[in-house]
Amino acid sequence: MSEKRKIAVVITARPSYSRVKTVLTAIQKHPELELQLIIAASALLDRYGSAVNYIEKDGFEIAAKVFNVLEGENLTAAAKTTGIGILELSTVFDNLKPDIVVTVADRFETMATAISASYMNIPLAHIQGGEVTGNIDEKVRHSITKLADYHFVASENAKKRVIQLGENEAMVFNTGCPSIDIAQEISKHTHLTFNPYEKYGGVGSQPDLSNGYIVVMQHPVTNEYQDSRKHIEATLRAIQKINKPTLWFWPNVDAGADGTSTGIRSFREKYTMKNVHFFKNMEGNDFLNLLNASLCLVGNSSVGIRECAYLGVPVVNIGSRQNRRDRGNNVVDVSYDENEIVSAITTILNRNNRSKSDVYGGGDAGEKIALLLKELPLQFHKTITY
Amino acid sequence: MSEKRKIAVVITARPSYSRVKTVLTAIQKHPELELQLIIAASALLDRYGSAVNYIEKDGFEIAAKVFNVLEGENLTAAAKTTGIGILELSTVFDNLKPDIVVTVADRFETMATAISASYMNIPLAHIQGGEVTGNIDEKVRHSITKLADYHFVASENAKKRVIQLGENEAMVFNTGCPSIDIAQEISKHTHLTFNPYEKYGGVGSQPDLSNGYIVVMQHPVTNEYQDSRKHIEATLRAIQKINKPTLWFWPNVDAGADGTSTGIRSFREKYTMKNVHFFKNMEGNDFLNLLNASLCLVGNSSVGIRECAYLGVPVVNIGSRQNRRDRGNNVVDVSYDENEIVSAITTILNRNNRSKSDVYGGGDAGEKIALLLKELPLQFHKTITY
Amino acid sequence: MSEKRKIAVVITARPSYSRVKTVLTAIQKHPELELQLIIAASALLDRYGSAVNYIEKDGFEIAAKVFNVLEGENLTAAAKTTGIGILELSTVFDNLKPDIVVTVADRFETMATAISASYMNIPLAHIQGGEVTGNIDEKVRHSITKLADYHFVASENAKKRVIQLGENEAMVFNTGCPSIDIAQEISKHTHLTFNPYEKYGGVGSQPDLSNGYIVVMQHPVTNEYQDSRKHIEATLRAIQKINKPTLWFWPNVDAGADGTSTGIRSFREKYTMKNVHFFKNMEGNDFLNLLNASLCLVGNSSVGIRECAYLGVPVVNIGSRQNRRDRGNNVVDVSYDENEIVSAITTILNRNNRSKSDVYGGGDAGEKIALLLKELPLQFHKTITY
Amino acid sequence: MSEKRKIAVVITARPSYSRVKTVLTAIQKHPELELQLIIAASALLDRYGSAVNYIEKDGFEIAAKVFNVLEGENLTAAAKTTGIGILELSTVFDNLKPDIVVTVADRFETMATAISASYMNIPLAHIQGGEVTGNIDEKVRHSITKLADYHFVASENAKKRVIQLGENEAMVFNTGCPSIDIAQEISKHTHLTFNPYEKYGGVGSQPDLSNGYIVVMQHPVTNEYQDSRKHIEATLRAIQKINKPTLWFWPNVDAGADGTSTGIRSFREKYTMKNVHFFKNMEGNDFLNLLNASLCLVGNSSVGIRECAYLGVPVVNIGSRQNRRDRGNNVVDVSYDENEIVSAITTILNRNNRSKSDVYGGGDAGEKIALLLKELPLQFHKTITY
Repeated sequence: MSEKRKIAVVITARPSYSRVKTVLTAIQKHPELELQLIIAASALLDRYGSAVNYIEKDGFEIAAKVFNVLEGENLTAAAKTTGIGILELSTVFDNLKPDIVVTVADRFETMATAISASYMNIPLAHIQGGEVTGNIDEKVRHSITKLADYHFVASENAKKRVIQLGENEAMVFNTGCPSIDIAQEISKHTHLTFNPYEKYGGVGSQPDLSNGYIVVMQHPVTNEYQDSRKHIEATLRAIQKINKPTLWFWPNVDAGADGTSTGIRSFREKYTMKNVHFFKNMEGNDFLNLLNASLCLVGNSSVGIRECAYLGVPVVNIGSRQNRRDRGNNVVDVSYDENEIVSAITTILNRNNRSKSDVYGGGDAGEKIALLLKELPLQFHKTITY
Repeated sequence: MSEKRKIAVVITARPSYSRVKTVLTAIQKHPELELQLIIAASALLDRYGSAVNYIEKDGFEIAAKVFNVLEGENLTAAAKTTGIGILELSTVFDNLKPDIVVTVADRFETMATAISASYMNIPLAHIQGGEVTGNIDEKVRHSITKLADYHFVASENAKKRVIQLGENEAMVFNTGCPSIDIAQEISKHTHLTFNPYEKYGGVGSQPDLSNGYIVVMQHPVTNEYQDSRKHIEATLRAIQKINKPTLWFWPNVDAGADGTSTGIRSFREKYTMKNVHFFKNMEGNDFLNLLNASLCLVGNSSVGIRECAYLGVPVVNIGSRQNRRDRGNNVVDVSYDENEIVSAITTILNRNNRSKSDVYGGGDAGEKIALLLKELPLQFHKTITY
Repeated sequence: MSEKRKIAVVITARPSYSRVKTVLTAIQKHPELELQLIIAASALLDRYGSAVNYIEKDGFEIAAKVFNVLEGENLTAAAKTTGIGILELSTVFDNLKPDIVVTVADRFETMATAISASYMNIPLAHIQGGEVTGNIDEKVRHSITKLADYHFVASENAKKRVIQLGENEAMVFNTGCPSIDIAQEISKHTHLTFNPYEKYGGVGSQPDLSNGYIVVMQHPVTNEYQDSRKHIEATLRAIQKINKPTLWFWPNVDAGADGTSTGIRSFREKYTMKNVHFFKNMEGNDFLNLLNASLCLVGNSSVGIRECAYLGVPVVNIGSRQNRRDRGNNVVDVSYDENEIVSAITTILNRNNRSKSDVYGGGDAGEKIALLLKELPLQFHKTITY
Repeated sequence: MSEKRKIAVVITARPSYSRVKTVLTAIQKHPELELQLIIAASALLDRYGSAVNYIEKDGFEIAAKVFNVLEGENLTAAAKTTGIGILELSTVFDNLKPDIVVTVADRFETMATAISASYMNIPLAHIQGGEVTGNIDEKVRHSITKLADYHFVASENAKKRVIQLGENEAMVFNTGCPSIDIAQEISKHTHLTFNPYEKYGGVGSQPDLSNGYIVVMQHPVTNEYQDSRKHIEATLRAIQKINKPTLWFWPNVDAGADGTSTGIRSFREKYTMKNVHFFKNMEGNDFLNLLNASLCLVGNSSVGIRECAYLGVPVVNIGSRQNRRDRGNNVVDVSYDENEIVSAITTILNRNNRSKSDVYGGGDAGEKIALLLKELPLQFHKTITY
């Protein structure tokens, strides 16, 4: 009689959860896999959207919670949060004794997962390696690739890069991005299936959404964190000028978040934004439905590059955060400039057709990854291929 | 009037100090550089040879000491030591505000240096990237390459690998290995210039060294740590059989060190090793002089691959620790097998000629690196080249 | 020629700063003392009022900043924040090498200061030991007394208690409370010297203050943290019923702060509080002037017990937080009950006279403490007196 | 149907285990208690005697292991070890959710247990409060008393002190010391029941024990750690002069242990100690049998004050470590002086009678404590009694 393979997945932020939800479901359903779900960092915290609440509501059992966010929202705090993460996660892995640890994407604190697992000789799987963005995330992402034993990448270009990084080709798999799995399901509904004001509260005016609306989500960029306030102000002015019904989402917990948040708060105190409503967070499915029914997305969220490609939602992508990521024809790139942003939005609002792409997969990434986690040989010993 | 550039170098272990000593000297001598020397981890601890004492004796001023070794000598402790290192080093960097941080080689705890510096947007220089060994060190080494902004590598092959890892060619420099700088100086003396028993004490018999002697240095291998006792026993039996005057050095503080140490202690209690003397540690210069005057080196130390290439000292290299590192003709590779080890030593002892190589540089690495640290543009923003 | 004595003072929260400001000034002015000011924990954080900004504005030089607040606002986070505090402060003390460390009052994280100093054999002075409140603060406070070498207490009863705790009578000094020093200065102005809306912003309506106003400041109580929302709601309803101009201050960062904050936010969203304005924080001097000019203070802040005694400001003290602290006749105690609160406020508003007390000192505590820090023998070795 | 009460006991060192072993047994046997045994700090480490091995051999199941010893053996390391202990133990308590946490005695790292439990609102029981020794242990011990909710003390004087410290008399119990429980059992055998050389190895000569022998156990004293080498040397010279068969035990892991260890090693290298054998550690029962059969105990171990009182073994107690602890007539106190030590030993060796005392209890402490842990009301809220 064979034991189930224990698969520990570490989720450190709300967007990471959305990104791997179908992987979690597929692991849980697999008769020979046991899911050990570990929730850490900002995913546990109220002011970053309490991903943990959604996770529990979705019926996942949590094996361990790791509080490791050191307050400060400066760069030292990011380093220390990672250090505390290693201290805590190594204890968790010691207790849970997973057969494989899965880490997701490229946020700074995911390095804690990668180091703990690899230093403890636990095979490490990395989801979403090989992508290119040109910011600190890229250092983290490729550094994790060099610690990881299995690579589940989201596009053909990503696969090529991971292999060129010296990884064994036999351990690199283009599964597509699991976030597309959800987009596929959601894409059936082209209109809003819920009332966002009623369901999510939020603050600000409540513009009428029935004739279309814009969605804004703009995060600080780690290596430009000192400019985060200036950057958000360009977007605020542009949206004010466009003056269409707009739904705006708060930024995540990177260095610079204070600048972004303060920028938004000050602007709101100074000007009446009578067409803008602010949300702290939203369940993944609702957010995708909201996007799918929207006129366009403005900001620098990776959802614009990824899920919106599959959905065909037009995107005004601002600044350097998504630089060099593979993208579909739905994306227009602009700099941190009020006029460019206004102009790009205007063009989109005057357009009729939408442009779809499967550059990030076809909607079955979760199941592909679960199968691989079951079948791959357990190993933590590797060497560069050249 | 221009300020000096502040260069923080973090030393975490005795061998790392030997490896960068000429870099420290060259930085210190450079009129436009200020050395900020940080001593951490096992380099501070008595039972790993107190590198700190040698460093102070050599006249270097220490800017900060970081105690971060968590006891346990298991894999969890290695992870936690790294986590604590990040907590401590980020504070140190916050205080010292270096312009560039330098990290050395590939020991597990050097990752703490790399993460703290890169997360704090301090340009990171890495010495000795691009090498290949096939053990956990390799995960660490290449992972640090992906966090580092400048690469000072020790051989042409290493340079090629770092570039192939997607690093900007303009930031990769084959300076040669700084350890060769010391070897060059030392190579003038072909006989022992000191009495090792008198100067370093140690335990065991004191065989006559005047007709030649063998040196042994064998460390545990991180991803084989459960076999470290078995591995050291093969070497112990081989040396017992050869029965020549032998000087044996204790292992460093990797996971598995308990196995290696216990193996040596048990063997000594069971058998009389009447031709073997044990040392805990030795100043770098003396150690190189000792090697240069020896018949051969046995074990898995990188000094056999590196300095011994320049010196032409024959080496019996055991097991996987130095796998795929570039090597000169002075090296014979064997597995963890008593008979293979005996046979390789015997062949060497019957040979007459020595074989030298400059594969790891020509003796001016320290100065080359100091010049680059002065001249290179300060930057911490990079992207993969493909 | 004698060296100055180095006095490290660790400030971990905004109220602690107000409490020791005159001590800092007196140390700084003393020709034979050197102040080493260390700012830590919530005193560094924006969302707890950034005490650090006021400290710098007041002209104090900061020797070290220690970020150690682990996010979570649960009890585990309080413990971990203290653990991180010890890790960081021991490094700071190692660098600054103070002759004496001063810790203030009884917040949970002050234990980190006390442990680091006492474990490192640095003489520890404690300000405001010996008081009684009946909550978790009391465990912390008396526990620190047993680690401290010098005790600067604020009242005769406190002095008796510290001595009864087995401390050497020769090391226990009733200096009065340094917060009274500031109150003394401020008491010269019986009317508002600034416009609080203009100077501090804040949110909510801006009631006319010229005919008197109420001040509210109510913190969560650590060992009742699950009820913090219910407790604040009783006060909210009472203030709503009284319906006088009211200035309300946000709570500090204890366990339970989320409950208190959420309680306030929800109430505001549900009801219009047309006579209430909310402030996040205020400079100490302005706050005392505001209190001195007010009709009364409502809540559970220690300022009501302490400074308001000297000033003669009437106080409605709610719940257990200030239980058994010595108090003047200015205080009326009530439970977490809407009606009791309403009734007590009403009685005060109908009264004419004010009642002053010097139970917490006469306004020269800062100078007394600085003199003692200069004169006391340096010692860290003690034994219980019975 | 009632749930069992979960009692978490944290053991951080070998002597602490011996001290509470009968408590563990009694908890385990009690049908309404569940033992959650947590092993931490030096109790896990080989070079401090691996208490964990004895614990497992004795059949106790370990609920969690906590590695928190930071290497350094200086005072900063003691502080940091405590900080890491808090980080780790708070996670453990969060997972195990004990109803009561039990902490033992007064070693510096036990403060981590006390802080984690009390900050997390878990009722805390303290074994062996109220004793007086005059060193850093005393700061720790009384400080823990002020954090603890239940007090299980070992003597009437200790009980009086804890009550005078302001603790509620109803929560202070003189149970006697659990270590006496073991002594009672052991006292039946007045001769050695095992061969210590065969069973425990150790190093040095193997003197004949049949005509009596001396036992030595001397630890460094925390607040005299810089003199630890000088102190041990006085004892070494005294024992050398007495020249009787002697069994010597290595010191524990306090600050200063390096001095003590180095002192012993150097002395052994310089002089032949032909009547002295050295042990690293010994099972508690064997050690008591060894003491009971010995001529006398020399050093500063608390076993001399405590178990030897019950057994009537003569003790030469050196220096300040046991100052002011209650003691029976079996103890002779001397200073760190070769001549005094020699003289005291000589007097004892010429004496005939032995002197017993029940000052530390009658052998039923374990069961008394288990009963109280079952019966006491669960509470973590307290206030000083005066």
